[in-house]
Formats: sequence, C-alpha cells, structure tokens
Amino acid sequence: MILTVTLNTAVDLTYRVPRLEPHCVHHVHDVTERPGGKGLNVARVLAALGHDTVVTGFAGGRTGEELHALLRTAPGSHRVTDALTAVRGNTRRTVAVVDDTTGDTTQLNEPGPQVSAEEWTAFVTTYERLLPDASAVALCGSMPRGLPVGAYAALVREARVAGVPVLLDTSGEPLLRGLAARPDVVKPNIDELAGITGTSEPLRAAYEARRRGANAVAASLGADGVLLVTPDGAWRAAPPSRLVGNPTGAGDSAVAGLLSGLVEGLPWPDRLARAVALSAATVRAPVAGEFDTATYADLLPRVVVTEQARVG
Amino acid sequence: MILTVTLNTAVDLTYRVPRLEPHCVHHVHDVTERPGGKGLNVARVLAALGHDTVVTGFAGGRTGEELHALLRTAPGSHRVTDALTAVRGNTRRTVAVVDDTTGDTTQLNEPGPQVSAEEWTAFVTTYERLLPDASAVALCGSMPRGLPVGAYAALVREARVAGVPVLLDTSGEPLLRGLAARPDVVKPNIDELAGITGTSEPLRAAYEARRRGANAVAASLGADGVLLVTPDGAWRAAPPSRLVGNPTGAGDSAVAGLLSGLVEGLPWPDRLARAVALSAATVRAPVAGEFDTATYADLLPRVVVTEQARVG
Repeated sequence: MILTVTLNTAVDLTYRVPRLEPHCVHHVHDVTERPGGKGLNVARVLAALGHDTVVTGFAGGRTGEELHALLRTAPGSHRVTDALTAVRGNTRRTVAVVDDTTGDTTQLNEPGPQVSAEEWTAFVTTYERLLPDASAVALCGSMPRGLPVGAYAALVREARVAGVPVLLDTSGEPLLRGLAARPDVVKPNIDELAGITGTSEPLRAAYEARRRGANAVAASLGADGVLLVTPDGAWRAAPPSRLVGNPTGAGDSAVAGLLSGLVEGLPWPDRLARAVALSAATVRAPVAGEFDTATYADLLPRVVVTEQARVG
Repeated sequence: MILTVTLNTAVDLTYRVPRLEPHCVHHVHDVTERPGGKGLNVARVLAALGHDTVVTGFAGGRTGEELHALLRTAPGSHRVTDALTAVRGNTRRTVAVVDDTTGDTTQLNEPGPQVSAEEWTAFVTTYERLLPDASAVALCGSMPRGLPVGAYAALVREARVAGVPVLLDTSGEPLLRGLAARPDVVKPNIDELAGITGTSEPLRAAYEARRRGANAVAASLGADGVLLVTPDGAWRAAPPSRLVGNPTGAGDSAVAGLLSGLVEGLPWPDRLARAVALSAATVRAPVAGEFDTATYADLLPRVVVTEQARVG
C-alpha cells in the first residue's frame, strides 16, 4: 500500500450561488461535501489508479466524525483505509463558494484544531506502525497549530530509517526543514521553490533544492507543466495544449502520478508524464479535485517530455 | 412549558474574517457554532427569562446530529427539551461571514432537507402529543421543501382545537394561509405585512391582517419599534433611544417577549414593552442573537408605549 499523511485534514464544502455579493443573503442551491486535505486527495487519485492506500493524519470533533463518514462513502473508498489519529479539537471545514455568473471561487478556511504534544506522539506511533507495510509515503499540506516546525523533517527521517521512499509536498519553513532530512522527492510550486531558495529561475531553484537535501525535485509551473530534476537528469513536461478549467487538486494529482510511477518502477520521464497528464485531467474535470479518466487516457501518450541541460 | 416549532432548523456558523474579498482565499480566525432557526432562538431567550420550553421541528443527517449536540450544550439548555423529529435529509447549515473591517455580514444559507409526507405526518403526531402540556406555542420561520403550503395553517388549527394560544411568525403564502386559521398573534415585519395585505401603512396593514383572521398583530418596524393591534386596542412602542448593533435575532427576541408576557398573564402594553426591550437588548449584545440582560433590565422600564387611534 501507499501511505499518505495529511496533518491538516478538512471537510471540504462547495457552495454554488447565483452570484456572490458581499453583505447580502445568498440561497445556496447546491452543496457538495468531500473529504479534504492534500493527502486525502492524493489517496483518492491513487485509488482511482488501482493502488491501495492508507490515510493518516488527524481528525477530531463532530467535523472529524463527518470526515470519517465521508471517507467511508467517497468514490474508491474500498481502496482507502482510514487510519486518522483522534484529536480533541475540531477538524476544520473549508467552504468554496462558486459564483455561477463568473465561475470564480471564494474560499473560506477554518483554522483547524490545535494539536497537543500527546496527540503528536500518538500520531507518530501510528505512523511508525504503518510505515513497514508502505511501498511509499507522501507527506502533504500545511500543518495544524501546535506542531513543531520540524515535524515533517522528523517524519521524513522515520521513513528513510524504515527504507520507505518519501515524497514531501509542503511549503515555507516546514519544507526548508524537511529538505535537510533528505526526502526522495519534493513537489513545490515555483513560488514555494523561489521562497525557500531565493531563486525565481525554475531550473536553478530546483538544483538549489537538491543541493539542500532533496534527491529529486518536481516543481509545478502551473499551465507550463512540471520540471523534474533528479540525480539521473532533468526533464520538463507539459500537456499538448493549454488547458482551461479549475486547477483545484491538480498538484495533488501530480503527487499521485509521481508516487504511483515510483512504486511501479517507471523511469523518471514516465513518472513525470503521468504526473502532468493526471494534473491536466484534473483541471479539465467538471468536479473540482476529481480527474477525468478519459482525458487522462487521451493526454498521457501526448505529453511532451524534453530533457533539460544540467546546471552548475 | 412553552412549545416552539422550527420546521427549517439550522446549524448556524459564524465566521470572522479580516476582510471579505470575492474570489480570494480567506483564513477564518474565529468560528462559532450555534443551534439555529427562529423557534430555537425563541426558546433560548425564553429559557433565559426562566421559562421551560420544548423545541420541535425537523433534524436530519450528520448536521442534524450536530444540532442535537449543540442543543445539549447551549446556554440555558437545562430549560430546553429537544423534541425534534428525525428526517432523512440533512439539516441545513447557515454561514454568516462577518467582515472585521466593515462589520458587515454576508450570509450563505444551505437549502435544507426535502421533507416527505411520512416525515410530516410523524412530526404532526409529535406536535399533537406535546400540545396538551403547552401553555403557548410559537410557529416560527420558513418551511423546508416538500411541505404543503397550508402546513402552518394546519398547526394553528390543531393548537386552537387543543385550546393552546398560538403565535405565528412566518411570511408570504404560509402566513396568508395561516391567518385564515385564526392564530392568537402574528408577528410579521412591515415588509411581510405589506406583502400579504397590499398596504404599506403599518396601522392600516395591521388592521387588515386582523380582518383576515389574526386575533392580534405585532408588526416589527425595525428601529422604530413594534406596533401592536389587538381586540382591546392598539399600541406602539419603541426603545428610548436609537440603537446601534446587529439586528440578527431581534425579531425572535420580540416573539419570546410576547409569548412570555402571554403565559404570565401580562396586559398587552406590558407584553409589547417586554418585546421591544428584549429586541433592543439583542441588537446591542456583542454576540449575534444573544440578548444582553443588563441592557434588557435597563431598557424595560424606559420603553415608551403610546396608544394608537383605531382604524376603520
């Protein structure tokens, strides 16, 4: 199985309104409710690709119970095992308000629980118990309040001790600390990469992130695709044409592409092509965060992968 | 006990954000969660005034469970008995987004469940069981989808058959139908009253509503207070000075004032003064929908009640 960690899980609500106007009353005509948080999105895509996954992280309060219930009924749930650790605080909700008129989304994110030292210790125990059965682990997203800034770095080190390939997808100081623990792959977007390396040129920044400890760096460049820098070479890949759609979850689909390619033993350029095709099929899907399987099958053979010159 | 009926209950969420900007991501820094729907607000105020209440209506799904849990822990819950009837659909959430910069509120209301004929019948059975023990009953708020438009009229008739004084606080067609069933009191605001009577002049409109079946009409005039037209005379009352604050729940506090005055056998002008003082103390309270007990005690003796000339 593939293990995904989501420290800051959520219940994701999507509200459709005819038009969002501040300081007015709106009748929401459509409500959807999904398990949320990056690692849970990654697990959903992995499940759709046929991989068994275990999800861990934190869940608490009534919204935590709601999250457990949503995980039991979500598409592909027979391939997703719920191993979330209990916390006292309430799991956060996120509300995405979609304006029918403009198609734009306004996002409201609750703060999420404060996690205690005891709860963190209980989580680490669960993580250590799950690691030996994992073929790979993804550490995904922001951190709830109360955790040490080096939490991800500690989880990266545990995975390396257990000999399990580890991908880290976070930002800021937790990413910077995590790099030093030498993860197998990091997947920052170009802004996150610039933030930690001080370099906005993608290829230079990716090499700098490798120098700081990552074995491989997959940097998402938005509509321009993904840049991958590894010990064996560097490649860039993009979808065959510009895509119009909703980018929500595209990064999580890319993580699922990289991870599934890793456990299937695919060469780097093939993992990259899969990540880009899954991302693009997510942007194009009618429901935010889902990927369109027909679009994925159509795009995968047409993703253009080009080798990049080495730097430094 | 006083019985309150809330057919369209809710879980009310209040989100505080530094500034609401459409199409941006917002970090909510404060979340409050309360039992919602007009009849539940009325019961909370009645409980604070020392009256035992029973709340009924519908609750369903995970949000319904959340509502039951909130009722158990809300202030004054020892005086509020939960007799909500189960429905299959999910109880709606309402989200009030308060902008710290302007103080304004943007409201997002979920649609709420569709209620089946069987569920309506089950509710009516509960209502009939509770009525004989009630000293008064309040029928409050909008109706969920699936109910007959004459639902409130039927509940008014049941109360009259049981000899229990009944107050109706709704709008539009359900109010119009309800009037014909001859409720003891209706509490429309001036716009709702104009909508059903075709008359925007408050006193004329209130007399017209009496002619259509209401024994007494308490019309809320916003900052101008409340107009009360009864078989024994007509009065108008307003707080001693203009109030600045949040009007959320002020109408529900007025209903609690009228009902508590009724069961305590107060004369009409005293019930009116209580309704106005409670309303004003709700506008002034720091938390939306709560009333400030000190403000209430201060305002009650200073509410100015003036008799109105009879019309027609």
